[in-house]
Amino acid sequence: MDKLYYPYKDFLADTKILTQKIDWEFDAIIAIARGGLSLAQFLGEYYDLRAVYSINTIGYDDRQKLDGVKVFNIPQLQDVRSVLIVDDIVDSGDTLIEVLRVLDEEYSNITFKTASLFYKKSAKIAPNWYVKEAEAWIEFFWTEDIKREM
Amino acid sequence: MDKLYYPYKDFLADTKILTQKIDWEFDAIIAIARGGLSLAQFLGEYYDLRAVYSINTIGYDDRQKLDGVKVFNIPQLQDVRSVLIVDDIVDSGDTLIEVLRVLDEEYSNITFKTASLFYKKSAKIAPNWYVKEAEAWIEFFWTEDIKREM
Repeated sequence: MDKLYYPYKDFLADTKILTQKIDWEFDAIIAIARGGLSLAQFLGEYYDLRAVYSINTIGYDDRQKLDGVKVFNIPQLQDVRSVLIVDDIVDSGDTLIEVLRVLDEEYSNITFKTASLFYKKSAKIAPNWYVKEAEAWIEFFWTEDIKREM
Repeated sequence: MDKLYYPYKDFLADTKILTQKIDWEFDAIIAIARGGLSLAQFLGEYYDLRAVYSINTIGYDDRQKLDGVKVFNIPQLQDVRSVLIVDDIVDSGDTLIEVLRVLDEEYSNITFKTASLFYKKSAKIAPNWYVKEAEAWIEFFWTEDIKREM
């Protein structure tokens, strides 16, 4: 698969585009860690929301399903009615589906919507808002830049 | 107070310096949200740790103390012996002191150490590792860049 280096300046531009696309008000942001952490921080700043949380997932082999995902560190959501869940990329969609299922089960009175920078057309679920379709393997700056020589 | 714009390229260079200073092995990273989120993502990538969590704090007025800090969304720490807590800046130190107190109380068998990009000499606590002393009001790129015109 082709590789696409995704530098900070593209992330910044795309995050701004994402804010233009999101036509919805929300009270809190949940980052799917690790991929969504920087995006959540930027969106928290943009929307002036201090309620920026994270959630963790771990993939495991389940011979009966194709991919199993365990969700943990579910944030406390009090006095919250609508939450934006963010990730860098929706790839297979397995993670996002399971995060939504667990959060909907835990908080049936809260509306959850989802946003990502990248989305693969082959994913089993589309986020409510995204910026770009991923047609290559995305090499995010937070992965690449920190490993390069100074 | 003077203001210092802190761009992505300085963040990247300082995060690399931080990794050179941290002479300690750890199993997990906890970001103090929101400030520590991007730093935690980069360090997670650098150390190849998927165990990147966040913790939230909220400041409140307590007329009897100068500053009160409430800590919530304490992550689950199983099979973990040593954890690096990260934030962008240690300013008064109130947040870091309370985060450490709560985590030490919850997990008496885990060693917690702390790292930040900036540290103010007037803070009540110093992180174990930091890169720069803050002598101005730091305008972090995640606050500034997202609010600027495209």
